Amino acid sequence: MVFLGNEESSSNFKENHYPFRQDSNFLYFFGLDLPGLSAVIDTDENLEVIFGDDTKIEDEVWFGSRLSVSDLAHRVGVMQVKPKDGLIKYVHSSKHKTIHILPPFRPENERKIAACLQVKVPEVSTKISETFIKAVVAIRSVKSGEEINEINEAVNLTANIHKMLMKGAQSGMIEYELVGLAVGKAVSSGGRASFPPIITINGQILHNHNYSNRLEDGKMVLIDFGAETAMHYAGDITRTIPVGDKFSNRQKDVYTIVSNAHSEAIAALKPGVKFFDVHLLACKKLAEGLKDLGLMKGSPEDAVMEGAHALFFQCGLGHMMGLDVHDMEDLGEQYVGYTDQIRKSSQFGLKSLRLGRELEEGFIITVEPGLYFIPQLMDSWQGKGLFKDFINYDKLKQFRNFGGIRIEDDFEITNNGSRLLGEPLAFDILGVEAFRR
Amino acid sequence: MVFLGNEESSSNFKENHYPFRQDSNFLYFFGLDLPGLSAVIDTDENLEVIFGDDTKIEDEVWFGSRLSVSDLAHRVGVMQVKPKDGLIKYVHSSKHKTIHILPPFRPENERKIAACLQVKVPEVSTKISETFIKAVVAIRSVKSGEEINEINEAVNLTANIHKMLMKGAQSGMIEYELVGLAVGKAVSSGGRASFPPIITINGQILHNHNYSNRLEDGKMVLIDFGAETAMHYAGDITRTIPVGDKFSNRQKDVYTIVSNAHSEAIAALKPGVKFFDVHLLACKKLAEGLKDLGLMKGSPEDAVMEGAHALFFQCGLGHMMGLDVHDMEDLGEQYVGYTDQIRKSSQFGLKSLRLGRELEEGFIITVEPGLYFIPQLMDSWQGKGLFKDFINYDKLKQFRNFGGIRIEDDFEITNNGSRLLGEPLAFDILGVEAFRR
Repeated sequence: MVFLGNEESSSNFKENHYPFRQDSNFLYFFGLDLPGLSAVIDTDENLEVIFGDDTKIEDEVWFGSRLSVSDLAHRVGVMQVKPKDGLIKYVHSSKHKTIHILPPFRPENERKIAACLQVKVPEVSTKISETFIKAVVAIRSVKSGEEINEINEAVNLTANIHKMLMKGAQSGMIEYELVGLAVGKAVSSGGRASFPPIITINGQILHNHNYSNRLEDGKMVLIDFGAETAMHYAGDITRTIPVGDKFSNRQKDVYTIVSNAHSEAIAALKPGVKFFDVHLLACKKLAEGLKDLGLMKGSPEDAVMEGAHALFFQCGLGHMMGLDVHDMEDLGEQYVGYTDQIRKSSQFGLKSLRLGRELEEGFIITVEPGLYFIPQLMDSWQGKGLFKDFINYDKLKQFRNFGGIRIEDDFEITNNGSRLLGEPLAFDILGVEAFRR
Repeated sequence: MVFLGNEESSSNFKENHYPFRQDSNFLYFFGLDLPGLSAVIDTDENLEVIFGDDTKIEDEVWFGSRLSVSDLAHRVGVMQVKPKDGLIKYVHSSKHKTIHILPPFRPENERKIAACLQVKVPEVSTKISETFIKAVVAIRSVKSGEEINEINEAVNLTANIHKMLMKGAQSGMIEYELVGLAVGKAVSSGGRASFPPIITINGQILHNHNYSNRLEDGKMVLIDFGAETAMHYAGDITRTIPVGDKFSNRQKDVYTIVSNAHSEAIAALKPGVKFFDVHLLACKKLAEGLKDLGLMKGSPEDAVMEGAHALFFQCGLGHMMGLDVHDMEDLGEQYVGYTDQIRKSSQFGLKSLRLGRELEEGFIITVEPGLYFIPQLMDSWQGKGLFKDFINYDKLKQFRNFGGIRIEDDFEITNNGSRLLGEPLAFDILGVEAFRR
């Protein structure tokens, strides 16, 4: 089994690096948070080897001294070390053995695998080991007590940063001012952002990384931010707040629908329940609320079955979280969120649900229902005449520029239900408005 | 001439991106700050083409709408657009022409070039166009008035962040608290850090990115931080401050040497002067000061000629600055900082001088002398018996844990001298101490 650590990544020239982020699988199994390392677990020889090069005196002038690879390896219980380029030789000389490889997501690591296996880069994707992926997913999916404590830390830090933003957002600010506050606080706490922040008055754009809009009274700000601790465990929380001190009545109406779906979904979390079903439950709750609001019509259950609600909720209810905010996404959603029995749907909306499988004790997941009013999508569906029996397109015109609302928290699946991670952060209307005064 | 824009870079899984940073050459010539674009200037056909794919409605749900590639291209005066994968075809079908390629510094772009030229990846480095590099360097080295204004903005933002840190640093803080303040403020101002901050009590480590040390009275903090504006022009300033409210006498002694070298180097800046000579001037000034302090002996001039001062000043006096903090470093230091006539030295110290060529009006450069007391290097040189006639190793023992001091500012080369960029930020001892009260 080959584990490739990450290299430094360049931004605008080779030596101008982005903050180093170790590969999460390497971090999980070998714990060393430095670039240029890789490792092998050789079950035939009952051997683990870490590959890496020691720093030279010239490097130490520039980057300081660090422990030798040998000392680093010993600290994590690995007794054998070899030079960095020894990995290719090791894998070559193991040609009679089965070589297990995880899917690379950085081009330089894809190239290393190609060199190890002596294949061309485009062939690498055919050499990935499904057995290896499934084994890693099985181990990493169930979090240990230490991991849960660390994730709890990440969620607490995340919640504190949210509080700061929920208090600090002011009319006239530009979105990037809030982004800077959030990112700065994460770094000042010894961590970093666990993903590119989504902090926007255009909450309907699901992964919005444009931060140039001005906050104006009457608008809402959707804040989807997560911090990762120094150990690289992630938090991930979303709140949607009014720019002024109160939500408008229309905002309250939509907010309440999302909030109810959030609560209902949380109440349904327990081992043995399929997250796919929790997602559908939340969707039904959203559809019922939208029907009460006059935006949908007909049977909410049928609407959800056919996918009509996905005009307003285009994505999934949540995902696994751990060393990655979308935990193990590099290994493939079909392995992390689904099983051979429960496969991902191709229906619009459901196909973006990252997690569908049965929940187990020790899983850490997010719950994040939302309602998103996307003019392009409304026009596209109405133009195609889609779901006319379920969607009241006329009434919907009034909500064209409404924006989007999401509420997200993080949960541990316990033996009989779930536990909110981190100190509770208000998500009810009054609780959110209390931050704004 | 082929210009490759950058792609998104992944941190811990494919879709978890670092903040997008466009390739600076692409940005300079085509101005479009989006991933997935490339361009060709075809001088045979008198044609410019931008290659890129329009977003689909599905993408817009996730990332919002953006202008079509055609509209984007027209905004920057390019009339012809083709799909992203059209680049390879275009270059293939131009096989009878000379294809000019710049050196790639990201592995995915290296692979794109290999595909364009139908060569293997390791051969790409042999296909780089020196003519193209030299032409780009000639254009980008001399900054326009608009560029200088933008760089001035970047330096002002940088100086303001320094002021915040120079006031805000407190005994008991951990270095990353200051890093968070700096990075957060850069983002809150619509920019970002122009390079990984060096904010450390171990100023002797030249590129230190470990931020886990605690600030203690008696120590100094070296703060080397630069902000880049939304247009991606960089600033780069270094100050070294006492953790307490005053420098110790020994710190003052060393600080004064660096400060004098800084002033002397600045006074020497003007068109026609070789920066190599300004570097040597600063080195001589440092060596003279170290001799007065009893750490060096013999002729300072001879010491610098032979490289003995490099025990304390291991790096160069400065570098070009522009869209990159080390401007155009991706194109190669030998082209940016040197000429066919003035070549880089291989002597320790001088080989790290990024800029040696004659200064010209419109160049933007940094001046950053320093003194760094690196125990490993002291031990190594003393062990080898190096420069015993110039270095007083006995006396040096007292400075073993001194740390490092650097002072850095940014300058425009004018028609008869130089102009400090940004509002002046005190670097004299009293001026720095004034921030600490």
